[in-house]
Amino acid sequence: MMTFGRIFKVSVFGESHGLAVGVVIDGVPAGLAISAEDFKADLDRRRSGAPGTTPRKEADAPEFLSGVFEGHTTGSPLTIVFRNCDTRPEDYASFRKEPRPGHADYVADIKFGGFNDPRGGGHFSGRLTLPVVAAGVVAKKFLAAALEDQFSIETSLKELGGSADPEAWDGLIAAAAAEGDSLGGVVECCVGWLPVGLGEPFWDSVESLVSHAVFAIPGVRGIEFGDGFAAAAMKGSEHNDPFPLTPSKNGAGGVNGGITNGNPLVFRVAFKPASSIRKGGVPGRHDVCIALRAPVVVEAVTSIVLADFLRLI
Amino acid sequence: MMTFGRIFKVSVFGESHGLAVGVVIDGVPAGLAISAEDFKADLDRRRSGAPGTTPRKEADAPEFLSGVFEGHTTGSPLTIVFRNCDTRPEDYASFRKEPRPGHADYVADIKFGGFNDPRGGGHFSGRLTLPVVAAGVVAKKFLAAALEDQFSIETSLKELGGSADPEAWDGLIAAAAAEGDSLGGVVECCVGWLPVGLGEPFWDSVESLVSHAVFAIPGVRGIEFGDGFAAAAMKGSEHNDPFPLTPSKNGAGGVNGGITNGNPLVFRVAFKPASSIRKGGVPGRHDVCIALRAPVVVEAVTSIVLADFLRLI
Amino acid sequence: MMTFGRIFKVSVFGESHGLAVGVVIDGVPAGLAISAEDFKADLDRRRSGAPGTTPRKEADAPEFLSGVFEGHTTGSPLTIVFRNCDTRPEDYASFRKEPRPGHADYVADIKFGGFNDPRGGGHFSGRLTLPVVAAGVVAKKFLAAALEDQFSIETSLKELGGSADPEAWDGLIAAAAAEGDSLGGVVECCVGWLPVGLGEPFWDSVESLVSHAVFAIPGVRGIEFGDGFAAAAMKGSEHNDPFPLTPSKNGAGGVNGGITNGNPLVFRVAFKPASSIRKGGVPGRHDVCIALRAPVVVEAVTSIVLADFLRLI
Amino acid sequence: MMTFGRIFKVSVFGESHGLAVGVVIDGVPAGLAISAEDFKADLDRRRSGAPGTTPRKEADAPEFLSGVFEGHTTGSPLTIVFRNCDTRPEDYASFRKEPRPGHADYVADIKFGGFNDPRGGGHFSGRLTLPVVAAGVVAKKFLAAALEDQFSIETSLKELGGSADPEAWDGLIAAAAAEGDSLGGVVECCVGWLPVGLGEPFWDSVESLVSHAVFAIPGVRGIEFGDGFAAAAMKGSEHNDPFPLTPSKNGAGGVNGGITNGNPLVFRVAFKPASSIRKGGVPGRHDVCIALRAPVVVEAVTSIVLADFLRLI
Repeated sequence: MMTFGRIFKVSVFGESHGLAVGVVIDGVPAGLAISAEDFKADLDRRRSGAPGTTPRKEADAPEFLSGVFEGHTTGSPLTIVFRNCDTRPEDYASFRKEPRPGHADYVADIKFGGFNDPRGGGHFSGRLTLPVVAAGVVAKKFLAAALEDQFSIETSLKELGGSADPEAWDGLIAAAAAEGDSLGGVVECCVGWLPVGLGEPFWDSVESLVSHAVFAIPGVRGIEFGDGFAAAAMKGSEHNDPFPLTPSKNGAGGVNGGITNGNPLVFRVAFKPASSIRKGGVPGRHDVCIALRAPVVVEAVTSIVLADFLRLI
Repeated sequence: MMTFGRIFKVSVFGESHGLAVGVVIDGVPAGLAISAEDFKADLDRRRSGAPGTTPRKEADAPEFLSGVFEGHTTGSPLTIVFRNCDTRPEDYASFRKEPRPGHADYVADIKFGGFNDPRGGGHFSGRLTLPVVAAGVVAKKFLAAALEDQFSIETSLKELGGSADPEAWDGLIAAAAAEGDSLGGVVECCVGWLPVGLGEPFWDSVESLVSHAVFAIPGVRGIEFGDGFAAAAMKGSEHNDPFPLTPSKNGAGGVNGGITNGNPLVFRVAFKPASSIRKGGVPGRHDVCIALRAPVVVEAVTSIVLADFLRLI
Repeated sequence: MMTFGRIFKVSVFGESHGLAVGVVIDGVPAGLAISAEDFKADLDRRRSGAPGTTPRKEADAPEFLSGVFEGHTTGSPLTIVFRNCDTRPEDYASFRKEPRPGHADYVADIKFGGFNDPRGGGHFSGRLTLPVVAAGVVAKKFLAAALEDQFSIETSLKELGGSADPEAWDGLIAAAAAEGDSLGGVVECCVGWLPVGLGEPFWDSVESLVSHAVFAIPGVRGIEFGDGFAAAAMKGSEHNDPFPLTPSKNGAGGVNGGITNGNPLVFRVAFKPASSIRKGGVPGRHDVCIALRAPVVVEAVTSIVLADFLRLI
Repeated sequence: MMTFGRIFKVSVFGESHGLAVGVVIDGVPAGLAISAEDFKADLDRRRSGAPGTTPRKEADAPEFLSGVFEGHTTGSPLTIVFRNCDTRPEDYASFRKEPRPGHADYVADIKFGGFNDPRGGGHFSGRLTLPVVAAGVVAKKFLAAALEDQFSIETSLKELGGSADPEAWDGLIAAAAAEGDSLGGVVECCVGWLPVGLGEPFWDSVESLVSHAVFAIPGVRGIEFGDGFAAAAMKGSEHNDPFPLTPSKNGAGGVNGGITNGNPLVFRVAFKPASSIRKGGVPGRHDVCIALRAPVVVEAVTSIVLADFLRLI
């Protein structure tokens, strides 16, 4: 389904080389101040152009088709559209016949009986994360307003190409680019000042919804909360967070029984190396490391999840 | 929300030391042959009693309240109830005042204003996985019928207490039990013979729904598909699965662009060490290693997700 | 689907002559005082036994399987089960072969490939309204608590067998019973003291959700709000309710643009004559006029809708 | 919520005097041939300009932002946008202060804290039915394809201003227009060649979903199926449709137990007289009788409901 969320509902649409990509957000409270300017910082974080990212250039200017009046949200569905401009569909003409390894070309062709838009991955393209980032900006505005500006979220790349040393990354990128290869990475997200009690028992735990949204991002291979996979090798006496909780001992990552416990929500996301590589014979303009542009996307989907939880309380 | 799924919908209810736990399954196709006998094997896999598991003894006999007639599903909601018998609520009398580390006691008390059932974790108890296992049996019956018996799913414990050597596990368990401590583990699930095309683009990818369901299981800290976190340190040329796909090179874990690609669906789940430990001052009857009983639960939620995807096609 | 509602979610299950009928209610706020006694009045309103109703006798005693602890709702799913006792499945043995006119026997047989439970209509039976009435009691408790006891709802039979004169009804019923025939009726519901602003624009208008729920009740043929069908023959100058609104001029039935406007919510529901008639050759124990037992069911589904709207605000 | 449907999901957005109105349709099967030409007939049926309709003139040209490639649906979300051109927001400047009787101005102002777009009713405007008609075209294309072109749907105005004589309507309209007043009407919809078995027991009966969607249309006051309100005054022996069913005796309107029975689906919808009347002091360009433009809207929402039911089978 194209829609995620129960009250704060986010629907994405569009194709990489079609007319546009966009998002309809339902359940946005009325009265949030909103302007194109508010989106600039996050859209820039996602933008390509830095070493390691695709040279495709898009203006990425949001058009607000509905839901905003006199600079504030109206309470009716908020629609944001981004026109596609710098498209080169001819690059992708052959993918229908010869699907790219690691891509959705093959499964999309089968699933949709050959009617999917194959240009640049069509609806499966990473370009769909653009409207998601826009929805994340709206979600963060709501969270900041509802939590009285105490809300904080920080998302950054912690590992690239297997290295946790940021000073080594430029060299790794240059080397991979020279080889026509690609690199993976690990993104960490930390959300502060959440109230105790977000999340629902069992099916709709905080981890369930966050991971649901995170695995929608193309290229994600794993997610772990708090101590994560390391917890599987720990003893209970090491892993348990004693009461009163403090951020310095946060093995649970801020969640007990699926519900926020007042500690920061902390998780890490593993991104695979980009599938499109010259070494693999894929022409076109591609990212060497999609993880470089991923933190703001992880932050966006997390904010969307939290906005939805907050509306459910 | 208590409900998971879009067509094959599973709702769980109940409390650890209340009258019963149970499940209502909507969207079960009519005509599946079903009997209490079908549930025995999986319920036994989840049952306690082995070294490392709680001594609480429950008959765990399913009662079919609705949806079955003359040995077949009717197409109307299927309700299965398990009465709680061996309850000792007095063990838990103090948890309202003094919440157990790593448990939902504290967050539940805040979220529900002190009205939650605190006995044995109430609705947050691992006992809720019992009706989930029952729903998994129904899901597997549907999958086997719909996929003409080619469907296979295998789920097992791969690591315990940090060790991948099963021969060492008994010793680790005995040692942890003696110390009043607990151990974590890693469970792997492998699903074979899935058709190409299960899953939806973006929000409802296969990984999104599987992880959503898996993180509903108490004690899960992480999940990874295919190469998982290791992919973040690989190059694209190493990680990409070339066409034609084969199970022997399955870095994607059987999913491209969120859609099954015909390779086995493979993922691993990290379970934390049980929170309730004597060493931490928690009385009661507890598992040393909840991961021992977890494989069948992981298998159940995975089957539920796949049944739902199959009904959506 | 068996489930209705977005936050206050009501799932019904069961068959007329199976083990039980029941309901799981999700999204009930924690802390509502609740006891079996609270359900007696409404269950009695629905009960058979009066002239014009079936002689089938059921204890209709609610069993609370989950979600209640120490006399209050816990915030986790609330499950209420009613065992079926006075079942006579043999009465219905022939319906598979020879479907009863006006009943679901035929469509159920086709839809479920002959696997539906045919006894007494199975899952299509009016007996499913029993757990719905129980859910309505819970909804009304929540509404009364949330609206500070100002909430009022009155639902009654306004017409029977085409007559609006209650004094004539006993005679009409006796005559129809003597002929082995059945009668229809019109039920009116009036809800007072609702806040302005319940309901959502477009798809989820108040009328949309109320009618959705009302048409779930077996035997409903029509619904109209405020001036209803008469409005189609009125001029705007007659029909419009001028501001300030007053209950004495309420052509809109308390709803503008799908949203409650502060006036009482008023609507009428047409019930067909019962399909099971001796005159039509249907053996068994049947109601002459199902509309006699319908008001409390209409009231229940309306309360469920309103509870859900209130939780969405 | 802005979204309707479970598989074939229709989300509408936009405001009467904002940039655009539009629709995102999820769950459209891939491979339906589609072109702007396909929409012309239904958009013209809804268009204003005839006597009794508003003189506002809009091009109403659909723009396909996503989901169509090389003249066929792709299986990904289908987005259709209609730009607003002939807007005169100054006409509505005063409605915030002085809400129009019968309109949503007042409830919208309260519900959204004064942040709603008040121009021309904003999101509550009848203009939102434009993208709904477009979605109906897509739904009908799917139904015709899936039912092998046997699908038929006819929707027409049966009464206007209380008269069932079409020859009298022009005179009634002219008279009402001269008085600055408005008229209501009754629309009938008849759907043929539906398979037996569409619809779900209880909550999601055919009547439930159809009425849910129909009451989303601005100005609807009532709906009745088959014999409708007249059934409440009939005896069972008159109302029951004997087997085998024939269209000539169709008191049930084609539905038993909430499920289609093979007879035509027949229902009638009561539209109120338009609220905006010169006699009531409302300036602007308004319809004398919104029911004149309503049949295609009723047909659209009905087709949307049926498409969703068909996808659920």
